[in-house]
Amino acid sequence: MTHSRTVELEGHIIDSGTMQRCFGAVMDLGGSFDVQQFDVGKHETEESYCRLTVSADDPETLRDILHELHQNGAVLEDPSEVDLVAAPADKVVPPNFYSTTNHPTEVLYDGEWIDVERIEMDCALVVDPGGDSGESPRAYTKTLNAVDEGDLVATDQSGIRVNPPERPRSGGGAFGFMQGGVSAERPSESTIREVAEELRAVKEDGGNVMVVAGPAVIHSGAGDALADLVAAGYVDALSAGNGFATHDLERSIYGTSLGMNVETLEHPRKGHKHHIWTISEIIRAGGIEAAVDEGIVTEGVMYECVVNDVDTVLAGSIRDDGPLPDTVTDAVEAQNAIREQAHDADLVIMLATLLHSVAVGNCLPSTTKTVCVDINPATVTQLLDRGSAQAIGMVTDIGTFVPTLAEFVLEGDA
Amino acid sequence: MTHSRTVELEGHIIDSGTMQRCFGAVMDLGGSFDVQQFDVGKHETEESYCRLTVSADDPETLRDILHELHQNGAVLEDPSEVDLVAAPADKVVPPNFYSTTNHPTEVLYDGEWIDVERIEMDCALVVDPGGDSGESPRAYTKTLNAVDEGDLVATDQSGIRVNPPERPRSGGGAFGFMQGGVSAERPSESTIREVAEELRAVKEDGGNVMVVAGPAVIHSGAGDALADLVAAGYVDALSAGNGFATHDLERSIYGTSLGMNVETLEHPRKGHKHHIWTISEIIRAGGIEAAVDEGIVTEGVMYECVVNDVDTVLAGSIRDDGPLPDTVTDAVEAQNAIREQAHDADLVIMLATLLHSVAVGNCLPSTTKTVCVDINPATVTQLLDRGSAQAIGMVTDIGTFVPTLAEFVLEGDA
Amino acid sequence: MTHSRTVELEGHIIDSGTMQRCFGAVMDLGGSFDVQQFDVGKHETEESYCRLTVSADDPETLRDILHELHQNGAVLEDPSEVDLVAAPADKVVPPNFYSTTNHPTEVLYDGEWIDVERIEMDCALVVDPGGDSGESPRAYTKTLNAVDEGDLVATDQSGIRVNPPERPRSGGGAFGFMQGGVSAERPSESTIREVAEELRAVKEDGGNVMVVAGPAVIHSGAGDALADLVAAGYVDALSAGNGFATHDLERSIYGTSLGMNVETLEHPRKGHKHHIWTISEIIRAGGIEAAVDEGIVTEGVMYECVVNDVDTVLAGSIRDDGPLPDTVTDAVEAQNAIREQAHDADLVIMLATLLHSVAVGNCLPSTTKTVCVDINPATVTQLLDRGSAQAIGMVTDIGTFVPTLAEFVLEGDA
Amino acid sequence: MTHSRTVELEGHIIDSGTMQRCFGAVMDLGGSFDVQQFDVGKHETEESYCRLTVSADDPETLRDILHELHQNGAVLEDPSEVDLVAAPADKVVPPNFYSTTNHPTEVLYDGEWIDVERIEMDCALVVDPGGDSGESPRAYTKTLNAVDEGDLVATDQSGIRVNPPERPRSGGGAFGFMQGGVSAERPSESTIREVAEELRAVKEDGGNVMVVAGPAVIHSGAGDALADLVAAGYVDALSAGNGFATHDLERSIYGTSLGMNVETLEHPRKGHKHHIWTISEIIRAGGIEAAVDEGIVTEGVMYECVVNDVDTVLAGSIRDDGPLPDTVTDAVEAQNAIREQAHDADLVIMLATLLHSVAVGNCLPSTTKTVCVDINPATVTQLLDRGSAQAIGMVTDIGTFVPTLAEFVLEGDA
Repeated sequence: MTHSRTVELEGHIIDSGTMQRCFGAVMDLGGSFDVQQFDVGKHETEESYCRLTVSADDPETLRDILHELHQNGAVLEDPSEVDLVAAPADKVVPPNFYSTTNHPTEVLYDGEWIDVERIEMDCALVVDPGGDSGESPRAYTKTLNAVDEGDLVATDQSGIRVNPPERPRSGGGAFGFMQGGVSAERPSESTIREVAEELRAVKEDGGNVMVVAGPAVIHSGAGDALADLVAAGYVDALSAGNGFATHDLERSIYGTSLGMNVETLEHPRKGHKHHIWTISEIIRAGGIEAAVDEGIVTEGVMYECVVNDVDTVLAGSIRDDGPLPDTVTDAVEAQNAIREQAHDADLVIMLATLLHSVAVGNCLPSTTKTVCVDINPATVTQLLDRGSAQAIGMVTDIGTFVPTLAEFVLEGDA
Repeated sequence: MTHSRTVELEGHIIDSGTMQRCFGAVMDLGGSFDVQQFDVGKHETEESYCRLTVSADDPETLRDILHELHQNGAVLEDPSEVDLVAAPADKVVPPNFYSTTNHPTEVLYDGEWIDVERIEMDCALVVDPGGDSGESPRAYTKTLNAVDEGDLVATDQSGIRVNPPERPRSGGGAFGFMQGGVSAERPSESTIREVAEELRAVKEDGGNVMVVAGPAVIHSGAGDALADLVAAGYVDALSAGNGFATHDLERSIYGTSLGMNVETLEHPRKGHKHHIWTISEIIRAGGIEAAVDEGIVTEGVMYECVVNDVDTVLAGSIRDDGPLPDTVTDAVEAQNAIREQAHDADLVIMLATLLHSVAVGNCLPSTTKTVCVDINPATVTQLLDRGSAQAIGMVTDIGTFVPTLAEFVLEGDA
Repeated sequence: MTHSRTVELEGHIIDSGTMQRCFGAVMDLGGSFDVQQFDVGKHETEESYCRLTVSADDPETLRDILHELHQNGAVLEDPSEVDLVAAPADKVVPPNFYSTTNHPTEVLYDGEWIDVERIEMDCALVVDPGGDSGESPRAYTKTLNAVDEGDLVATDQSGIRVNPPERPRSGGGAFGFMQGGVSAERPSESTIREVAEELRAVKEDGGNVMVVAGPAVIHSGAGDALADLVAAGYVDALSAGNGFATHDLERSIYGTSLGMNVETLEHPRKGHKHHIWTISEIIRAGGIEAAVDEGIVTEGVMYECVVNDVDTVLAGSIRDDGPLPDTVTDAVEAQNAIREQAHDADLVIMLATLLHSVAVGNCLPSTTKTVCVDINPATVTQLLDRGSAQAIGMVTDIGTFVPTLAEFVLEGDA
Repeated sequence: MTHSRTVELEGHIIDSGTMQRCFGAVMDLGGSFDVQQFDVGKHETEESYCRLTVSADDPETLRDILHELHQNGAVLEDPSEVDLVAAPADKVVPPNFYSTTNHPTEVLYDGEWIDVERIEMDCALVVDPGGDSGESPRAYTKTLNAVDEGDLVATDQSGIRVNPPERPRSGGGAFGFMQGGVSAERPSESTIREVAEELRAVKEDGGNVMVVAGPAVIHSGAGDALADLVAAGYVDALSAGNGFATHDLERSIYGTSLGMNVETLEHPRKGHKHHIWTISEIIRAGGIEAAVDEGIVTEGVMYECVVNDVDTVLAGSIRDDGPLPDTVTDAVEAQNAIREQAHDADLVIMLATLLHSVAVGNCLPSTTKTVCVDINPATVTQLLDRGSAQAIGMVTDIGTFVPTLAEFVLEGDA
């Protein structure tokens, strides 16, 4: 017996690849389709519309197909209201709960499509009905560990509309639209120039710039350039780890990073006591801000972040030495802090850290512009695959990238 | 002033991504389009048809756009005949000559669309008018260095139709359709099992299997397994280099590869005289076949290739020691030998060599199935990017891949 | 003015590279040396002895040189007692505290050299004087965050003797002695065979085997093979993260890993709701053990660990979804749990995870045998650089490595 | 029965690692040693001397051990004359011929130690006795394919003395002494500054600088910077391939590289007809120099090489399109041309090409300073492993490396 449903798609669905993905999904999953109507936008600025009926031999296959189409923006022809079920206990979601994508999403509640706030992927979708005192209903995401007993959690996918990003009608520049692969063979300085232009443009528009940085930024000698960008006001939030901060502070206190002087390259191999001494100095002072106040730390990225009131999150990890008193050692607490930064960001620049970049990427909606820089192509690929619509991936050396970026941004050379 | 032309596209142009690429190209290159007609195939088995007019502000932009559309299969609404110009001298093509893609191609000559033989990319397209004695006209590719004075070479792109591969309606299995990225995080043994199935299927259909192998196959200890596949008749052609052959022969003569015993791992570091001694032994014998005949070489891949009459090409390179007498040291001559192998192949398996794989890939039409295996993701990405329509890219260890493949193929475990 | 001190070195100090490193360190740091006595072991089994005076122009340089020599096993000619200072507050070490290496270490206390327990790098060295009730004095390491007010912490390096591992007189086999680089071009199956032999030998000797595993083990389809090794009693401790456990449990519950069926390779791209559903199922059950008890989880690595009472630590990280109730989200708490596992281990096998491998490696003495397997050469290099004396680094595909290892171990084929 | 021989070693044999390697080799290969005399240099400037007797149970093992010791500079206590055998035919060496290392080497002929000219690894060692007309005897290397019938070829290793490079007594700077591993985590700009200093120093001393460049130099947008270095006289020889030259010429003629404008990043994907058109233009002109003369090529690296009379070798490979008329398509002929360049070089800078770098590295003595730059750590490791004594390996982005280097060199900023 054949099971069928009819769905609709709308927008720049051809050149955004939506139709290709939808037709492909139906065939890959073993279903078939019947196009009821397809109005192709005649010009590049006109939207297209498609209504198609998909069929499968069993209801499970049909459900899987509809799930795929749903994630690509398809809505059932006659959408019903969102299906809400109360969470039975703290952290426990109802069976068959709806797990969010990172695309802008709406829910049909009480006859109206309302925007889901704080969209990010792999979350539960909770609706607050508003109520007596006249508040409007609201919908927002909640991570599993944040779900409270009684939260009204969306299940299945009825009454939920996903809006995947569309190919921009103009420009996009270096920010390729959902481009897949990453090649090291692109013109490096020209690409950095485009990042510099974007960084300046975002700040000129009053936007929020978040930098995610790994310790390699310091080891590779790029700390001064990043500190310059912070000092010049180009960084609103810094998301890093205990290692990044320690090596940056070590440079300020001892002039070395992992025991190597990054100017003279003198490297007392294995004599890396400086980083652990740095940590003990900061513990003794009571924290980074106190160490800056006491004049123990007088330069570097962390120094500039303190002095310029940059919103800084140091997230702990199991490979940390110390850790510094400022490091948030609980992963859930750290995630929540990162989440706040991520939701505020208009441009995220990820510098040579897979761990922190993935953590930040997990919290980002697909509409936030991101720049991912790493010398390992696999890292850049993994980050771009998370589905930001406007992303630059660059396989390059962080030790030359940041100084070149800073030069282009600060000397107006961009 | 606006310049316009109208083109047509036909086939599974939505789910193969053709329309997405065409609309994208027009916008990227600064033109605009006007869809005259768009008939969408109602079911997955029906083809679609699109006629659209593209416009640009200047003729150069329009030409660039049409070039892109052409490469994606678009043809001008009223195609004129192919525009042929005689080559003015050996190796010299006429200005504005047509450079081929690797997709199946036809030319409109004397009122008929004729298939272009021996299609491969970046070649000149030569038409032989046939003639007096009643032969039909023929069209084929020629590399630049093979062009003879007087050859009738196609120029511009009028009268030429490109047929990019379409998404297969069913299956494809592990051979993803023009998939972009490459991930190391795929189930290895299951993927190898699919390659084994394909290899057996191709041989059962009487197909031709070409193996392209780098020296790492031998260093990694996979030589025996490859020799077993050759001995069992699964390899019709071997394309390799002087290094591969030398290290394989070294194993037969001295039991080592680059001086290391691949069984016991004993490795007289820097005592790598064996490979140069091997070369001198083969030179003394007069070549590999002679060395096999004399009983100097008694096992290994080269031995099995000699004994089983496998079509073998050893292409020279500037990093070769020796070289062996069997190595073709002239690059053009070697390319031509590789070209013959490539045009005969139904399945090409590329094992841990970028140089030879690119050389082979350059000669392949986009319709030949290929498997690319390397431990470096950048190598696999580069090979897949050459545009084979049905390709498996695998980031894995050649030293475990080949033995596992041989086990699945030979023990019927696939 | 010249500042000088005389130090002694003893053991297999030539072929272990100790003398090369010591002479090199003096020259690199700008000092000079005067060999007072050098008795070279006449045979390979005889130890050598060297007494040398090092000089520098200023006391700081001399101190740096002595620090380097100390870390390579040199002791001052007339060693004084260890210099202990009470920690002024919890987590606060005295200035100039001694930061440990990962080599076996002794302290001279009360006239006797006593072994430092639980040696690991970058820790404080605390001496417990024993005392009234007749206990002997003890020395042990403490991480900075574990230091309590009043702990007697070693400062400087007087009275401390480091014993770097020496080149083994016989064998070592695949476990190369402090080998630096990592090459992908080694015979893969032979190397895996050596690991298998070592694994069996350690278990036959009643040793403790610790496996550190990343999620790629599951994605690459190697989960069943690892589960088999656990079931057969070859794994005493598992150190992994929330991701590894989630994907393993997803396989048991849904038959997929990250939404892909690792047998059939069917992959509902982006339809990766299974992993988050898995987490919610386990939360609902109350944890992994409960889920096993309830029959929700019936196979896989985690299942075998529960059933076979394997000591399991799931350490949290900021990129975790969920997390599972079993995941230790606090980094310091997780480190302490990992530390217990690491100190018990006789053989550590690190499978495709940089984060967890570094965390474990940080806790290991240099004498523990380790095997590091990853497809990224940079990861393997980084892990080997941490200075285990007996380590195998292998750049290979985890998806073929684990099944091949399991086959060699379980079928007695090693 | 025990077989023994006594050998001598001299020089800075402890801190250069020679003794460590020799003792290790004896033990690894299953022999034993008896130190007869060991005079350790008392100060860092004094040389050491060691005489030791090595023994093994069979003559084969002893021979293998002696081979290893020989390659590390050991000589038999009472060396006999070099053992010469006439080559029986062109390209055919006598059995058991001596295969050279890349270290400075001497032969004992007619009672005198004479230097081997044009030392490079894996060659035959030929002695020309000089003779009647009073010429002195000479010794030099010959590749196997260059050996002529009757050449007097050294066999075994008697009468041959190898002088592996020793750790320099002072400095060396960034040019680490035979350092093994390669890390991406070094301060990039400081390292580039050291390369710039070395480049300027070599030119100030009238030295010869050879640049080996791959096509990524052009794709990554670094062509202008390299052209600037050539124009300023910092490059004496360029060793590259057909691809490098084609993409550089394409930039001059069409403003693109592989079809991408490296300034504006506009990239007509797949519209890469420019490179094949470039080749046809150069063929039509008759070669690169002719194209420069005719004003077809007016800028770029090849242009500057022509105008500044830089010794340029374009070596062909099987992946070439075209090729250009200037490309040497025969591998042996190309090797010989590269060999001439390599033997003249005082500093070799290898930029983003494995193939050409290995080819050049094969011809270099171990005493030539080399800089290897690539974004792939495996490439840099492979190049450094070839045993240059003074080498910098840098894992970085060629697209930022060359411009930064040019800036430091040309603006005197080094």
